[in-house]
Formats: sequence, C-alpha cells, structure tokens
Amino acid sequence: MKIVIIGATGTLGKKVSFAFSQKHEIIRVGKSSGDIQADITDEASIKQMFDKIGSFDALISTAGQGPFAPLNKMTGENFKNGLLDKLLGQINLVLIGQHYINKNGSFTLTSGILSDHPVAAGSALSTINGGLNSFIYAASAEFSNGIRINAVSPNVVEDSPSYFDSFPGEIPVSMDKVVKAFEKSVLGIITGQVIKVF
Amino acid sequence: MKIVIIGATGTLGKKVSFAFSQKHEIIRVGKSSGDIQADITDEASIKQMFDKIGSFDALISTAGQGPFAPLNKMTGENFKNGLLDKLLGQINLVLIGQHYINKNGSFTLTSGILSDHPVAAGSALSTINGGLNSFIYAASAEFSNGIRINAVSPNVVEDSPSYFDSFPGEIPVSMDKVVKAFEKSVLGIITGQVIKVF
Ligand SMILES: NC(=O)c1ccc[n+]([C@@H]2O[C@H](COP(=O)([O-])OP(=O)(O)OC[C@H]3O[C@@H](n4cnc5c(N)ncnc54)[C@H](OP(=O)(O)O)[C@@H]3O)[C@@H](O)[C@H]2O)c1
Ligand SMILES: NC(=O)c1ccc[n+]([C@@H]2O[C@H](COP(=O)([O-])OP(=O)(O)OC[C@H]3O[C@@H](n4cnc5c(N)ncnc54)[C@H](OP(=O)(O)O)[C@@H]3O)[C@@H](O)[C@H]2O)c1
Repeated sequence: MKIVIIGATGTLGKKVSFAFSQKHEIIRVGKSSGDIQADITDEASIKQMFDKIGSFDALISTAGQGPFAPLNKMTGENFKNGLLDKLLGQINLVLIGQHYINKNGSFTLTSGILSDHPVAAGSALSTINGGLNSFIYAASAEFSNGIRINAVSPNVVEDSPSYFDSFPGEIPVSMDKVVKAFEKSVLGIITGQVIKVF
Repeated sequence: MKIVIIGATGTLGKKVSFAFSQKHEIIRVGKSSGDIQADITDEASIKQMFDKIGSFDALISTAGQGPFAPLNKMTGENFKNGLLDKLLGQINLVLIGQHYINKNGSFTLTSGILSDHPVAAGSALSTINGGLNSFIYAASAEFSNGIRINAVSPNVVEDSPSYFDSFPGEIPVSMDKVVKAFEKSVLGIITGQVIKVF
C-alpha cells in the first residue's frame, strides 16, 4: 500500500510511520521535515504535495495544532488560528486528497480526548476535536468508490510527558495502542468511526 | 432579566424573542435588522455591540451560517467561511461577551442535529455543530461567577419547509419545542448541556 503520513516526524507520526513502514511504502510529510514538505494551513501547498505524490492508497494525518489558553484570556484570533490549523488543515487534506486517492482508499485523521473530556485551557482543542469527529461521520456517508474515513482520538500519550500535568486524572496511553488504532483504520474495513484510545 | 438575542429577526430568533419578550427586557440584534446591528464574523463589530448594550443577564444566539455543498464539490474556502461564521462567530460572542455578562448570567448558542445525524451536502454544518457542542462542554467547565453556557440543537424546524427535502426521514420539530429548549437553558440551572430537540 502507498501510504502518505502528514506529521510523520512528530511524536505520534514517528511511531505510526515506523509501524506501517515494515510492510508498506511510506511517504513522510512534515512542515519542515520528512520526504516532502507541505503546510496543511495552505491549500496551494497541499495541492503541490498531492501533485508530487500522485495517487495513493491511504492518508494518515498526525499533524495540526491548536492553542492552549484559559477561557477568560482566550482571544478570537488565537481560537481562529487553531480552527484553521488542526481542524480546517486536516479537513483540507481530505477535500483536496479525495481527488487523488485510489478506489477503496482511506483517510485517517487525528482528533483527541478533549472533544469529550475537557481540561483547563483546552476549549479550542475541544472545539477542534468535536468538529473533526462530526466531520468524520458526515464525510464517510458521502464518499463513494469504497473510500473510507476515520479518526483516531487519543488520550494524552506516554511519549508526551510535558502534557501530563494538563490532563489530571488521565492515564497516559501507550503508543502501541495508538499505533494499533491507526492500523485498525487503515488496514481494516471500518468507516465513519472515531476510534477512541482512552 | 436583560436578554440579548443575536439573530432575533430570523426564523428561530423571531419566535424565541417573542416568547422571552413577555416577561423580560429584550435587545434584538441582527446583521442588518433589529434594535442593534452587529456582524458576528467581525470581532470589532461584536465589541461595539457589547459597548452599546453594557452588562446583561443572558445572551442567546440564533445566528450563524454554514455552506451546503456535496463533499466532492466542497472547497476549502467555502468550508472556512462556515467555520468563521456559525462556529467562530458564536464562540466570539462568548469570548468577548464573558467580559460584559453579569454574575449568574448565561450564554445559549444554537448548534443543530447535523453533528450527530449527517445529511448529503452537510459536512460543513456537521463539523460546525460538533465543534460548538464540544465548546459548550469545555467552556462551561472553565466559567466562574455562576456563568452558565448551553447550546440548543434543533432538528429541522416546522417553520423552514424549504429545508425539509434536505432532511429525509426527519420529522420537523415544532417551534414551541425549540422555544422551550431556549427557556430551559436561560431560565433553568443547567450548564454544559447540548439540549437536543430531535
Ligand atoms: N501528543 C499527545 O499526547 C496527543 C494526544 C492526543 C492528541 N494529539 C494530537 O495528535 C496530533 C499530533 O500530535 P504530536 O504530539 O505528535 O505533535 P508534534 O510532535 O508536534 O508533531 C507534529 C507533526 O506535524 C507536522 N506539522 C505541524 N504543523 C504542520 C503543518 N502546518 N503542516 C504540515 N505538517 C505540520 C510537524 O512537522 P515539522 O516537525 O516539520 O514541523 C510534525 O511532523 C495533534 O493534532 C495533537 O493534538 C496528541
Ligand atoms: N431553520 C432550521 O430548520 C434550523 C434547524 C437547526 C438549526 N438551525 C440553526 O439555527 C440558526 C438560525 O437559523 P434560522 O433558520 O433561524 O436562520 P435565519 O432565518 O436565516 O436567521 C438568521 C438570523 O441571524 C442574523 N444573522 C445572520 N448572519 C449574521 C451575522 N453575521 N451577524 C449577526 N447576525 C446575523 C440574521 O439577521 P439579518 O436578517 O439582519 O441578516 C437573522 O436575524 C442557524 O445557525 C441554523 O443553522 C436552523
């Protein structure tokens, strides 16, 4: 399978890429790293990326940021930047990528636990993740040609200890579990699912 | 109670405003209609509105648009416009309004059934509504001073017959039920709830 991984050099992306690279052709994409550079906040950059890559069988995104700020200090500008990055950026990978993906291909995006379990200062990421989850339900129902789409929604992961204090009471999940969730989406048959790893 | 209603002249807003006007002071806001004009897609315009209104006890928003387009024709630009309107616009009413609202005041936003039950061409509104719902959970947990926040999430309403064909199998809900949901949020004690009217 030819698998494009956006965010391949990040905390999640590194381990996801390594796992799939054992049996598949991987194209690693990062903003300033990887085999190909692309910026998911820039539609022209996404198009250029797909033009270089050509058709593919699966796209995994582990890219996308959102701001952490207490609600009473959160600004509209800050909030907007998050919406245009982790939310619209990943959605644009699908809106543009749908014109390049092979029959029976799949998209797998990354949302996260904050859609359902908020933490202090996390309102933008909660919004982003909730939006992504509903996009998955809606988009899956409109695809044809066997195209599938899912999201993996992790809890804070064991490889991100600097985030632990922001997630009181949460038990960090193992990267093995997170990798398995991406395998379930890419190698399995499900669509329209938010695979919770929490 | 002094209640600000953004979108007060719309299909939902008209009946919601009428109901609350029986016992409360209502300030009707529209983009080009109402007692005060404001554009929720423009932060400066929102600030000007609150400066005119001063402090208030409850804010209701029944404003905000998103594009309807089949997924395979949806563009990033179109999608973005929806995110910046119904999603960020309503969130900015809260981010800015939190600095004007009275102790024990409440915010009530409008999301909609598409977060959970997608329809053809509705992927942007699904995303917007899912994002709004998660924002409600997250923001409610960060407020202090008794400030509450909820969303009303209606099915297609009986007063919008032109939408019926886009919602096959759905039974349009009565405006009375929708109005009651807004009353539950504004006059009740709940917070962090998405009140489903479907
Ligand atoms: N870490 C966690 O505990 C955790 C838990 C739940 C959910 N998540 C979510 O998982 C996703 C990945 O998190 P992470 O911790 O792995 O992040 P990370 O370590 O910061 O890695 C981000 C990756 O995405 C790439 N990237 C960043 N901005 C980009 C852009 N605009 N265009 C293209 N690529 C871009 C980066 O490439 P460069 O290095 O070249 O910039 C890097 O490869 C995020 O959405 C996060 O919210 C993470
Ligand atoms: N109708 C339904 O069946 C239904 C079902 C579920 C959810 N909803 C949701 O409920 C909300 C209201 O729907 P509706 O059918 O009542 O809409 P509508 O009839 O089109 O009314 C929209 C109202 O919002 C105001 N408005 C529009 N854009 C604005 C802006 N940028 N800034 C400030 N005010 C603005 C309009 O003022 P002007 O007239 O002055 O422009 C008008 O008062 C929407 O978010 C919709 O998605 C509707």
